[in-house]
Amino acid sequence: MAELRKDPLVQRWVIISDKRGKRPSDFKAAKSTEDVRPGPCAFCPGYEEGTGPETFAVRDGGEANASDWRVRVIVNKFPAVASDFPCADSAVGEGTVFGECRLPGFGSHEVVIETPDHDTPFVDLPVPHICDVLKTYQVRMKSFRKDARFKYCQVFKNRGNRAGASMTHSHSQILALPIATHSIEDELRGAKEYYDTHGRCIFCDVVAHESAIKSRLIDENEHFVTVAPYAPRFPYETWLVPKRHSSNYETVGDDELQSLAALLKFMLQKMDVAFSQPPYNFMLQTAPLDPDSWDLPYYHWYIRLVPQLITLGGFELGSGCHINAVAPEKAAEFLRNVKIN
Amino acid sequence: MAELRKDPLVQRWVIISDKRGKRPSDFKAAKSTEDVRPGPCAFCPGYEEGTGPETFAVRDGGEANASDWRVRVIVNKFPAVASDFPCADSAVGEGTVFGECRLPGFGSHEVVIETPDHDTPFVDLPVPHICDVLKTYQVRMKSFRKDARFKYCQVFKNRGNRAGASMTHSHSQILALPIATHSIEDELRGAKEYYDTHGRCIFCDVVAHESAIKSRLIDENEHFVTVAPYAPRFPYETWLVPKRHSSNYETVGDDELQSLAALLKFMLQKMDVAFSQPPYNFMLQTAPLDPDSWDLPYYHWYIRLVPQLITLGGFELGSGCHINAVAPEKAAEFLRNVKIN
Repeated sequence: MAELRKDPLVQRWVIISDKRGKRPSDFKAAKSTEDVRPGPCAFCPGYEEGTGPETFAVRDGGEANASDWRVRVIVNKFPAVASDFPCADSAVGEGTVFGECRLPGFGSHEVVIETPDHDTPFVDLPVPHICDVLKTYQVRMKSFRKDARFKYCQVFKNRGNRAGASMTHSHSQILALPIATHSIEDELRGAKEYYDTHGRCIFCDVVAHESAIKSRLIDENEHFVTVAPYAPRFPYETWLVPKRHSSNYETVGDDELQSLAALLKFMLQKMDVAFSQPPYNFMLQTAPLDPDSWDLPYYHWYIRLVPQLITLGGFELGSGCHINAVAPEKAAEFLRNVKIN
Repeated sequence: MAELRKDPLVQRWVIISDKRGKRPSDFKAAKSTEDVRPGPCAFCPGYEEGTGPETFAVRDGGEANASDWRVRVIVNKFPAVASDFPCADSAVGEGTVFGECRLPGFGSHEVVIETPDHDTPFVDLPVPHICDVLKTYQVRMKSFRKDARFKYCQVFKNRGNRAGASMTHSHSQILALPIATHSIEDELRGAKEYYDTHGRCIFCDVVAHESAIKSRLIDENEHFVTVAPYAPRFPYETWLVPKRHSSNYETVGDDELQSLAALLKFMLQKMDVAFSQPPYNFMLQTAPLDPDSWDLPYYHWYIRLVPQLITLGGFELGSGCHINAVAPEKAAEFLRNVKIN
């Protein structure tokens, strides 16, 4: 039977409608529609001089722009925002339609080229290499945190056209902005309310609860669990949640990053087997960059992984309420049992 | 230059990034990817007995299930929610992850078959016929309003696969739910705050402001304006806003409906010319169904029209902040000047 469920964090209803009878095999992604472009491309070694400026790289040698990197961060050549002009101190026109609340498009939009190899997808990188990528996110976040103009930083990965990627070469992106966005504000508000009521972090409670009841637990290792959230907006949406409480991704230690890399790779392998290498997004949700958002007792960083298996329609756009044809308990059961070759 | 803009209604930032240099022609929809299915289909005349029950129809004769209808409303055969069981009085488990806030999937999911002709798209229907469709939405809404179990009703249209449609035959949908959804709650909260501060309806202010400055005004007729909203999430997103204040779509009179039908058809014709018959969604945003949400001074019903020209990615999913490559002033200027053949 269909069910309405309210997300305990952001208080958003979803419709879980597995009455519609979708099986996992109904979600096989149409790979043939993917626009896979052969290399070399602008992200490949040897083309370093043509990219936006390099802001960080993992390489054995030391020379910037040399081709011996394993992970390379560059400024996006077609940035959504840029930092080559002054950041405004505050928005103008707040609070009236006549004033029009706006800020110059200050920010930083970087691309993390995850491997020099054009044809290797992220999921096929060895765990220590994925760890290098995850550590790179920390390095860049720490750098943005030192600059008071940046208030929030969104790390995300688009894999495949249907997940918004325009390049085949494996990469993720980091957008640092002078504002906190709607989602993080919603999450912080919800987490704070929960903390004020219960005296505990909602994510810590989720880890404890899901580990106990097990119906939405997919996998776990030393430092992380993967769960199907209680009120997921997307079929097979999966959260990777750290067992140790921390609001800030930058605080994650090396052994925890190894653990995260291993579990993230494992989940992506499962998605690939289950849905024939689907387009997907992952998003790193962490506390804002301002000093007041450090070491929050009520917020807890995590990663959202969403295979892109459906098309949203006017209902979702109009109401903000998603219809999800796969109950998270069924998604978790299915993903738990996917065998990696 | 890129710009960050905050929506004055729901206080949501968007990144307007027309530095990325997209021209209207870059957005031509790939029609060949549309899965247009030849008729007859289950929505065609002659197949009435096989559909879900008919709840309303516009026909000259009087007999239910006869094939002489011009507009026909049926219960969706694959409903996201259903009303064939009791509605719970209140959610259980609110407020804790351990309790799990849920309701049975009570609701109504109806399909409005907009024309008996399988091959006629909505945009090609004559204005009086579109008016029949718009009036049908009112009839169904009034019916749901009489039933206290329904709290909110979302009318929406998906045209084309990439906008979420699974049927070619022109149709829209009505979902009535026992809860108010996230978006309407956000809109009501924002509109109320604006009203409490300024003593005026924010939408009335938008109509006045946009009509005065004209840079985001696309078209207008006796009763409606079409505008590009100040902080649109999607390229060429267009709002149809009534000049007369009313929070409830059901209150719209016949002459206003004629005016709305004409302007909606005109906008859709422009979209078709501009973007080669793109997939699109439109959503009717109106006040909730409970008696307390009748005749609100601070809310104002309107229609959002979104041509589906882009793919969202992890940034939007993670942050809730959209990157829009077309400034609304440029979108409005472009759409103002589109000539209908």
